[in-house]
Amino acid sequence: MATDDLSDLNALIEMMAKLPGLGPRSARRAVLHLIKKRDTQMQPLSRMLTHVAETARACLNCGNISTLEVCSICASEKRANGQICVVEEVSDLWAMERSGMFGGRYHVLGGTLSPLDDIGPEALRMPRLKDRITSEAVQEVILALNATVDGQTTAHYIAGELAHTGVAMTTLAQGVPIGGELDYLDDGTISAALSARKEMPR
Amino acid sequence: MATDDLSDLNALIEMMAKLPGLGPRSARRAVLHLIKKRDTQMQPLSRMLTHVAETARACLNCGNISTLEVCSICASEKRANGQICVVEEVSDLWAMERSGMFGGRYHVLGGTLSPLDDIGPEALRMPRLKDRITSEAVQEVILALNATVDGQTTAHYIAGELAHTGVAMTTLAQGVPIGGELDYLDDGTISAALSARKEMPR
Ligand SMILES: [Zn+2]
Ligand SMILES: [Zn+2]
Repeated sequence: MATDDLSDLNALIEMMAKLPGLGPRSARRAVLHLIKKRDTQMQPLSRMLTHVAETARACLNCGNISTLEVCSICASEKRANGQICVVEEVSDLWAMERSGMFGGRYHVLGGTLSPLDDIGPEALRMPRLKDRITSEAVQEVILALNATVDGQTTAHYIAGELAHTGVAMTTLAQGVPIGGELDYLDDGTISAALSARKEMPR
Repeated sequence: MATDDLSDLNALIEMMAKLPGLGPRSARRAVLHLIKKRDTQMQPLSRMLTHVAETARACLNCGNISTLEVCSICASEKRANGQICVVEEVSDLWAMERSGMFGGRYHVLGGTLSPLDDIGPEALRMPRLKDRITSEAVQEVILALNATVDGQTTAHYIAGELAHTGVAMTTLAQGVPIGGELDYLDDGTISAALSARKEMPR
């Protein structure tokens, strides 16, 4: 791609350094590590990264990441148990799945309400969530948003929007620490909070 | 590549988690980050990773990583100043180059002598180093190996092997901390140690 023999390497290092948790030094070490393991690690990684970059997309129904139009959770009849767990991000969905305690489906908002950043109900896929209450015969919506101000504001907004549907609305129990983000919790904490979930106050 | 819509994602996360400095959690976050920035970060990274995996190779002369048969340092007449700096790894060469204080060429051993691991003089590219003393009219060999037991053992071995050539042999000055590895030092420390380098005791 470039004429200088180091500029491609440097470009690769700069790209790696932009990943969360990596900086220039760890990016350099990662790139050298990969070049040393060219056949066993670098080639498979580059192929899989290219493949996922080409195929990963948001599930049209719930917002989960999938390589199919509709993710395997939405496609599974077993997950149609009348419960939808609303989360902010895909990483939260993954954290819930790792806990192994939830048998229903998800709705990934993709963030929280933020009028200042122009993130409104449409951006959070609220219309789709309302449709799903009916089309998937939902009886309970579990609002598993982060225990942050933005997360709780958004949870109350959603509770208000869904009040007329008569669906039960619950939140994760005490157990999620104040200011805590789901993706940082251990699986046991998530399991306990899910088991002890309580009715959302109206 | 797989039929299950999550197995490719999980495979990618597992591959990323093998990089030094990353673990399962940071690999998950990195992959989600990339998918969110598919066009601006994931596609360019996958293209550059594929390109470097296809083109990066060891310089036939010095062992530096390059996308050419002979790296730009070996190809540059300006770097033919009669000095060769011997380092263990490419990361050490990069650390030396960042210090901006060395105008000669390098010889990358690719490790240290280790009879137990079957790493002998051939594996460390010693024959090539001996050839270069003559072919590149070298007057000084700077042994910039790590200040570890293995590094210093290897430095003494090299000094013995080159003794008959009459070439001057130096080591980096005090300033490299005991047990320290070049790649972890700040540029100023490397500069100071290089300026105050001393004759290798025979
Ligand atoms: Zn889905
Ligand atoms: Zn070279």
